[in-house]
Amino acid sequence: MTNERKPRGPYRKSAQRREQILQAAYEAVDEHGERASLHDIAQRVGVTQPALTYYFPTRDDLLLAVLERRDVLGKAFGRAVAERETIVDSVVAGTRFVTDHPGIAKLHVTLAAAATDPESPAHGYFADRYRALAAEVIQAVEEGQRAGVFRADQPAEHLARAVVAVLEGLQMQWMHDPTVDMVGIAETFTRMLVPPAGADGGEQREG
Amino acid sequence: MTNERKPRGPYRKSAQRREQILQAAYEAVDEHGERASLHDIAQRVGVTQPALTYYFPTRDDLLLAVLERRDVLGKAFGRAVAERETIVDSVVAGTRFVTDHPGIAKLHVTLAAAATDPESPAHGYFADRYRALAAEVIQAVEEGQRAGVFRADQPAEHLARAVVAVLEGLQMQWMHDPTVDMVGIAETFTRMLVPPAGADGGEQREG
Repeated sequence: MTNERKPRGPYRKSAQRREQILQAAYEAVDEHGERASLHDIAQRVGVTQPALTYYFPTRDDLLLAVLERRDVLGKAFGRAVAERETIVDSVVAGTRFVTDHPGIAKLHVTLAAAATDPESPAHGYFADRYRALAAEVIQAVEEGQRAGVFRADQPAEHLARAVVAVLEGLQMQWMHDPTVDMVGIAETFTRMLVPPAGADGGEQREG
Repeated sequence: MTNERKPRGPYRKSAQRREQILQAAYEAVDEHGERASLHDIAQRVGVTQPALTYYFPTRDDLLLAVLERRDVLGKAFGRAVAERETIVDSVVAGTRFVTDHPGIAKLHVTLAAAATDPESPAHGYFADRYRALAAEVIQAVEEGQRAGVFRADQPAEHLARAVVAVLEGLQMQWMHDPTVDMVGIAETFTRMLVPPAGADGGEQREG
């Protein structure tokens, strides 16, 4: 819509500043991973460090907002199924995003692991995030099964959670050994999710 | 061997004490995860906290020794292939070990994630550990492919790394949502690794 009303005055300025900070934080994390400093982020935007606090009360708040910005897997997956792209291509693209942005991937793994502790401030956040991601991928797999692009002889929830798990687990291996061919392995894995018979024919199977 | 020479005197006592501390640490982590305290561990053994330092100079040294004690996946896998057990059973058993010992699993995930930082003191340790685990599982898959219990139409390294990844990734989902049926999903996943045709016949396929 072209004549959508935009916020004006102080509110608009505040939203812009928040966006600038978030973008700067994203870039700092992309370069330095979890070690990205608030000092560096503030400098990139040209504000003082206390000014950051106005928009993001704690360092964790800012880092979690950065992670939200990179929630690509669920979306890429849903889009691929909706547009009848091949699932293999969408997983390869998602994996390549990870290898192109190692700092963001490291931040995700570190915060998600620390948040397994129920007393961690980010525990609830990650529980919600994993739940939403699983729901999104399960729905995509169900649609893919109906469309015949996903094998239908195994439960959709199991396949969906296995996809999320394998990508997260491969990230971990790759972070400890950058020679691990994450994209190639993700591709092999995804090929196993295509219907076993007539893999390129879109043949439909009912479980 | 029954007349194997055992260490005597002070050395033997010292080895026993080290073993007691390690066992106490294992139990404390099993109960409390990464929050297990050195104070609690020392109390379980009946020594002072500084005495722990003699055997394990840092808290990390002790926690990493606890993790070594639970390296089950590679071994369970290798054994299953060697003894012609079904792969599905061995993965289910490995997964059940994780759900029965959540504290140990949480410790693993937290330390492994923190160690993705190359400046972390445990970085080299985990790099070696992932390398050794991958080598062990790749070898088991290769043997399984030759024996016809593993699908041979995909590269052994890819299948092996996907197994490790899916189990690690499922742990993460399950830690954030204990209702995730980790054992069931691992079972579904492993069924896809069995040769596509004649799954129970040990039929051999060459990739």
